[in-house]
Amino acid sequence: MKHLPPEDVLVERLQRLFATRRRDVLLGIGDDAAVVAGTGRLVATTDALVEGSDFRKDADPRRLGRKALNVNLSDLAAMGATPLWALLALGLPRRTDPAWLDAFAEGFREVAQEHGAAVVGGDLSAAPVFFASVTVLGRAPEKGLLRRDGARSGDSLYVSGTLGSAAAGFLLLEAGYRLRPDKTVKCPGRTRLLKARAVEVARLIRHHVDPRPTLDLGRALAGGGVASAAIDLSDGLSRDLHRLCRASGLSATLQIDSLPVDTGIRELGGLVRLDPLRLALFGGEDYGLLFTVPRRKRPLADRLAARFAIRAIGTMDDRGEPGTVLLRTAGGERPLPDAGWDHFDR
Amino acid sequence: MKHLPPEDVLVERLQRLFATRRRDVLLGIGDDAAVVAGTGRLVATTDALVEGSDFRKDADPRRLGRKALNVNLSDLAAMGATPLWALLALGLPRRTDPAWLDAFAEGFREVAQEHGAAVVGGDLSAAPVFFASVTVLGRAPEKGLLRRDGARSGDSLYVSGTLGSAAAGFLLLEAGYRLRPDKTVKCPGRTRLLKARAVEVARLIRHHVDPRPTLDLGRALAGGGVASAAIDLSDGLSRDLHRLCRASGLSATLQIDSLPVDTGIRELGGLVRLDPLRLALFGGEDYGLLFTVPRRKRPLADRLAARFAIRAIGTMDDRGEPGTVLLRTAGGERPLPDAGWDHFDR
Repeated sequence: MKHLPPEDVLVERLQRLFATRRRDVLLGIGDDAAVVAGTGRLVATTDALVEGSDFRKDADPRRLGRKALNVNLSDLAAMGATPLWALLALGLPRRTDPAWLDAFAEGFREVAQEHGAAVVGGDLSAAPVFFASVTVLGRAPEKGLLRRDGARSGDSLYVSGTLGSAAAGFLLLEAGYRLRPDKTVKCPGRTRLLKARAVEVARLIRHHVDPRPTLDLGRALAGGGVASAAIDLSDGLSRDLHRLCRASGLSATLQIDSLPVDTGIRELGGLVRLDPLRLALFGGEDYGLLFTVPRRKRPLADRLAARFAIRAIGTMDDRGEPGTVLLRTAGGERPLPDAGWDHFDR
Repeated sequence: MKHLPPEDVLVERLQRLFATRRRDVLLGIGDDAAVVAGTGRLVATTDALVEGSDFRKDADPRRLGRKALNVNLSDLAAMGATPLWALLALGLPRRTDPAWLDAFAEGFREVAQEHGAAVVGGDLSAAPVFFASVTVLGRAPEKGLLRRDGARSGDSLYVSGTLGSAAAGFLLLEAGYRLRPDKTVKCPGRTRLLKARAVEVARLIRHHVDPRPTLDLGRALAGGGVASAAIDLSDGLSRDLHRLCRASGLSATLQIDSLPVDTGIRELGGLVRLDPLRLALFGGEDYGLLFTVPRRKRPLADRLAARFAIRAIGTMDDRGEPGTVLLRTAGGERPLPDAGWDHFDR
């Protein structure tokens, strides 16, 4: 079993890996704190991934490093912000293989570079399980900051991306399917998959293990003054819509036929029990944006639909109690429960 | 056994508790990210406390909340910075008693208020053990930013506070002594303590469980242009001095007779095996500042000695290899090993 080198050796390794040329980083990793040139409105968010709760012990470390940063960038996307600097606090079991940690850090750096962000600081602690607690600072949009509480009655409700894909990927992982680093699928036991199905399985698992933040969409919504409110979909459409409704003091009505439910999920019904609509409504980690658009801005939103996979799925209203959601189906309307991913309720 | 309420209920509770009136907080807890008004150079640091590694499961939650923030503020002190905003990512076992969490949050808030800092965001995750991963942002000093790499050969080496106190407190905890919330001492088994000794035991344990950051000293050293380099003492004098030497490309010579070894430690030698000098050199979590002062600034440092418990303990030089330290004793000089607290080496 390999063991970690001393803390200072690890810090020097990470310092080299995360070396940055951003001019607004006046002092990076290696001192008691980082120093950055922080003028204007800054956006700050923090989000942790914990082994056993957020990912499996056998997770691919590079993808995990990517995800640790990407879920934070998704929060910035939901504000219309642009990432600048990140800090990375790691909890490491003493048995951690240094190569595993290198791969994690490499994934984290990849994403930082994709988005032009600098990793300026961090912390290393011994812990019984691995965790990565990330803080990201970004530049707020010049105008049109996307808050949760800006929706008005009559605004249209939009969502980006597909719904339920990541939750289906999570269930496939639970059933023993794995995505290899080369993106092929490893099946549990003696299961064999037709190639087309394996491609779909890989795609769904990838949604879960390597989500992508919608920073460009967030900036377009803010900069263009298109959206009145936004939230990123981390805990499922229903839960996150309830949050947006509570913050804005409104109710909402969802059109079941308009939901961009991942069509690949139904195809895989034979492998694991996957209810596409249930996953779309209550599954977590889609990391698309849920946002509201005032009536007069709808033409702008429709124009954005040429660049981004966005779709109108309902309306903000004051028909119900604030913080409630109705689901409109062919058979009528029914209240949607405020359910979804909850860290403390499994 | 009590259980945690749903995540959104917890977030609302923390949102109320951490409500702030700071004008530079444009959007606090409750959205996807916080928005603050950043002006000028900002200092950013992150530091986590993990159950089992950094504190015992039976730790007093209010003191733990204080410490989680204070160890981060100590990093800001070591830069000469002033705290502005904090983010708090918590890993919570599902069995966490809500009252325990409230006490932790209360301690965290207490310290934030003491220093005029606002808690602007956070994250809650389920985890097998409790951890608190804190990020603090502060205003860099107008001038005289305290870096680790600014020392020059001939600079005097100073330290603030006493050495070894927190490490002695840690060993007393390991031996079964406890500090009750009312600050009295609970002894292990049938041990009885004279009142004077109990007061000393309480004082040493308090150094470990409730350390105080030296923000005023840090600001005075930076603003007055007194110090050429600084680091906070988190992992022991020897280890942190080696770090400062490596960063500045120098060696150092320590005067053993000048070290402000906690005199109370020797008194308690009968209770647990406490070697005061060993604890002073290699014990962690003193959270004083170790800093260097150019010769011509020594009068300024001596003037600060009226306000702060600081003491000259040696000299920065180039007598040895960069990153090495000599300890000068009555019997001559001997090299000091780069040893101390290491998260991955116990």
